[in-house]
Amino acid sequence: MSEQRYQHGLDKLMEYTLTDNKDISTHLKISEALQDIAPDVAKYIIEFAYGDIYFRSGLSNERRALVTISSLVTQGTEPQLELHINTGLTAGLTPKEIVESIIQLIPYTGFPRVLNALNVAKKVFAQRDVQ
Amino acid sequence: MSEQRYQHGLDKLMEYTLTDNKDISTHLKISEALQDIAPDVAKYIIEFAYGDIYFRSGLSNERRALVTISSLVTQGTEPQLELHINTGLTAGLTPKEIVESIIQLIPYTGFPRVLNALNVAKKVFAQRDVQ
Amino acid sequence: MSEQRYQHGLDKLMEYTLTDNKDISTHLKISEALQDIAPDVAKYIIEFAYGDIYFRSGLSNERRALVTISSLVTQGTEPQLELHINTGLTAGLTPKEIVESIIQLIPYTGFPRVLNALNVAKKVFAQRDVQ
Amino acid sequence: MSEQRYQHGLDKLMEYTLTDNKDISTHLKISEALQDIAPDVAKYIIEFAYGDIYFRSGLSNERRALVTISSLVTQGTEPQLELHINTGLTAGLTPKEIVESIIQLIPYTGFPRVLNALNVAKKVFAQRDVQ
Amino acid sequence: MSEQRYQHGLDKLMEYTLTDNKDISTHLKISEALQDIAPDVAKYIIEFAYGDIYFRSGLSNERRALVTISSLVTQGTEPQLELHINTGLTAGLTPKEIVESIIQLIPYTGFPRVLNALNVAKKVFAQRDVQ
Amino acid sequence: MSEQRYQHGLDKLMEYTLTDNKDISTHLKISEALQDIAPDVAKYIIEFAYGDIYFRSGLSNERRALVTISSLVTQGTEPQLELHINTGLTAGLTPKEIVESIIQLIPYTGFPRVLNALNVAKKVFAQRDVQ
Repeated sequence: MSEQRYQHGLDKLMEYTLTDNKDISTHLKISEALQDIAPDVAKYIIEFAYGDIYFRSGLSNERRALVTISSLVTQGTEPQLELHINTGLTAGLTPKEIVESIIQLIPYTGFPRVLNALNVAKKVFAQRDVQ
Repeated sequence: MSEQRYQHGLDKLMEYTLTDNKDISTHLKISEALQDIAPDVAKYIIEFAYGDIYFRSGLSNERRALVTISSLVTQGTEPQLELHINTGLTAGLTPKEIVESIIQLIPYTGFPRVLNALNVAKKVFAQRDVQ
Repeated sequence: MSEQRYQHGLDKLMEYTLTDNKDISTHLKISEALQDIAPDVAKYIIEFAYGDIYFRSGLSNERRALVTISSLVTQGTEPQLELHINTGLTAGLTPKEIVESIIQLIPYTGFPRVLNALNVAKKVFAQRDVQ
Repeated sequence: MSEQRYQHGLDKLMEYTLTDNKDISTHLKISEALQDIAPDVAKYIIEFAYGDIYFRSGLSNERRALVTISSLVTQGTEPQLELHINTGLTAGLTPKEIVESIIQLIPYTGFPRVLNALNVAKKVFAQRDVQ
Repeated sequence: MSEQRYQHGLDKLMEYTLTDNKDISTHLKISEALQDIAPDVAKYIIEFAYGDIYFRSGLSNERRALVTISSLVTQGTEPQLELHINTGLTAGLTPKEIVESIIQLIPYTGFPRVLNALNVAKKVFAQRDVQ
Repeated sequence: MSEQRYQHGLDKLMEYTLTDNKDISTHLKISEALQDIAPDVAKYIIEFAYGDIYFRSGLSNERRALVTISSLVTQGTEPQLELHINTGLTAGLTPKEIVESIIQLIPYTGFPRVLNALNVAKKVFAQRDVQ
C-alpha cells in the first residue's frame, strides 16, 4: 500500500538523517520549498527513492550512500552532493572514506569534478565539525 | 620511484583481475591494442590509476570497485563498465550487490542508464557463470 | 495501493504501446530480459514511471512523449530513444513533429546528438512504415 | 538573404519574449554583455537559433519551448533554463504544464536535475507572479 | 546571402575533406542518409556549422579541428569523433598530435572516454594508412 | 623517480602560470584549500597532470591549453574553465583565439555551454586587463 511505502520511506530517510547534526531537516526543507508548485515530488522522493529503492535489502546503508555520492560527483550536481555527503556521514561513512571515494574517481571523471566535490566535502565536514 | 609505482599498480591490478575467470587478461589486451599508437597510456593506467589511486589505503578493494562502477553507470561508458563489473566480482562484490548498486542509481540517473547497465551486468554474470 | 499503481501503470503503458505495430512488446521484452537478475526493475518501471509519473494529469500523452524524447536525445541513450520514438508515434506525435523536435535541439545539444537521434528516428519510421 | 534570416529570427524571438513581463530584454542583455568580446554570437542566436531553427514550421511555439526546456533540464544548464521557462510561459505553456514536464523527467534524469529545475521554475513563476 | 553562406560552407568543408583519402564523401553520405526525413539538417551543417562557424577567421583549420575533436572525446559521441579525426588529419594535424591531444584529456575526462577515443583514432589511422 | 616527476610537473605548471598576472597562485591556492582533507590530490595534479601529461612532448603548450579549454567548455565545469583560460593566455593563446575556440564549439555543444563559457572568458580578460 502507498501508506506503507511512505512510512517505509520516511523510516529509511530518518536512518540517513536523524542525528544531532545539521542535516536533519534538509530533506524536509526541500519538500517545503516545493510544496506550492510540486507537492508530489516530495512524496515521490519518500515513497519511491526511499520507500522503494533505499528500503531494499541487499546493500547496507553505507554502501547505498557510497553509490549515490559516486554518481553525484560524476554528474557534478553539487547541491545534492552536499546533501548526500551528509547522509553518507550519518549512515556511517567516515570523512576519510568519503574523501577516498572521491579521489578514487579521478581516473574516471578527471580532476575537475573531483576538485569541486572535495570542496563540497570540506564544507560539509566543517559544518558538522568532523574530519 | 617510477618502477615502484608501476609494480604497485601491477600488483594492485592483479588483485582485481587474477582469477581463474575470463577477465584476467582484459586490461592487458587493452594495453596491447594501444601499444602502437599510445604506448604510454597503458603505463599511466598501471602507474597512476592503479599505482597511485587504487593502491591508496583507506578504502577496501570492494568499495573502490563500487565507486568506480557507480561512476561508469552514470557516464554510460559501457565497455569500461563491463570491465569493472568483472573487477568488482573479483574484488569480492557479489552479483546481487552489483545489481543492487545499479538499482540504487535509478533515483539519480533515471532508468535508461540503469537498464543499459543491468544488461551489461547480465552479460558479465553469464560469461563468468555466476549469479 | 501498490496493485492499483501497478494497474494504473500497465494501463498507461498500454496507451503508449498498444497498437498493431512493432513496438507493442518491447517494454515487456525488457522486463523479461531482466527477470532473472533484477525482477523489481520492471515493476518499478510500471509502478513508478508509468503508474506514478505518466499517469499524472496535467500533460497530454503526446507532450509527455515529447518531453521524454527531448531528454533522451540530450543524454544520447539511443536504445531508449528508439523505444520512445515508438511510444511517441503511438501517443499521436507525427513523424514530422518528432523530426522537428529533434532539429529544435540543434542549438541546445549541438549537431552530433541530433544526427545520431535522426538516424534512430529514420530506422523506427522505416520499421513502422510511416513518414 | 542574411538580413531576412536576421529579421525572421528577431520576429520569432519577439514572439517568445514580447510581453509586459520581466523577460523581455533578457536575450538582448546577453547580446550586450558579449558585444565586446563575441559580437557574432548574438547574431548567430538570432539568425541561426531563431531565424533558422525556431522559425521552422511543423511544431508550435509551445512545443518548441517544451522540447528546449526538456533538454536544458537534462543538461543542468540553469541560467538558460531560467530564460527558457520564461520564453515557455510567453509561448503559452502554463506554469502547471512546465512543472508537469519537469516531473515527467524524473524517470529519465533522476531526481537531482529535476529538483534543481523546479527551484528555477519556482523563482521564475514568482518573478512573473504566475502559478 | 544564403547562397553565399552555403558556398562558403561547402568550400570550407572541402578544405577539411578533399583529399585522395577515405573521408571525402562521409559528410555527403550523412546528408544523403537524412535527405528523406530531415533534408534541412545537411543544409544547416554546411551553411551554419561550416559557412558561419568554420568559415570564421581567427583560428586555423588545424586548431578548429583540434577544438572539435576535444569536445567530441569529452561527449563520447564516437561516430562524429571518427569523422572529425579524419577532417583533423586532412586539415594538417599529424596522427601523433591527435593522439597527444586525446592523451591530454586524461586529467579532464578520465581514462574511459580517452581509451574509447584512442580506439577510434587507431581505426581511422589504419583506414587512411597513416601513423 | 617521483621527485623528478614532481619537479617536472612543477616546472611545467610554472610555464603555464608564472607571469606578472593574476593567475600565478591559483593552482597553489587550490592545493592549500585541500591540504587538510586531501593533501595527495595537489601532488597528483603536479606529478600526474603536469609531470606526466602536460610534460609530454608532441604538442605545444598552446595546443594543450586549447584542448583542455575545449573539454572544460563541453563539461560545463566553470571554476576549472576560469583557471585554464588563464593558463591558456599565459601559454600564448590570444584572447581572440580563446573566444574563437569557444565559438567553434557552438555546433558541438549547443549555445548554452558556449554562452556560459564566454562569460567566464570575459571575466578573466577583464581581470588580466587584456582583450
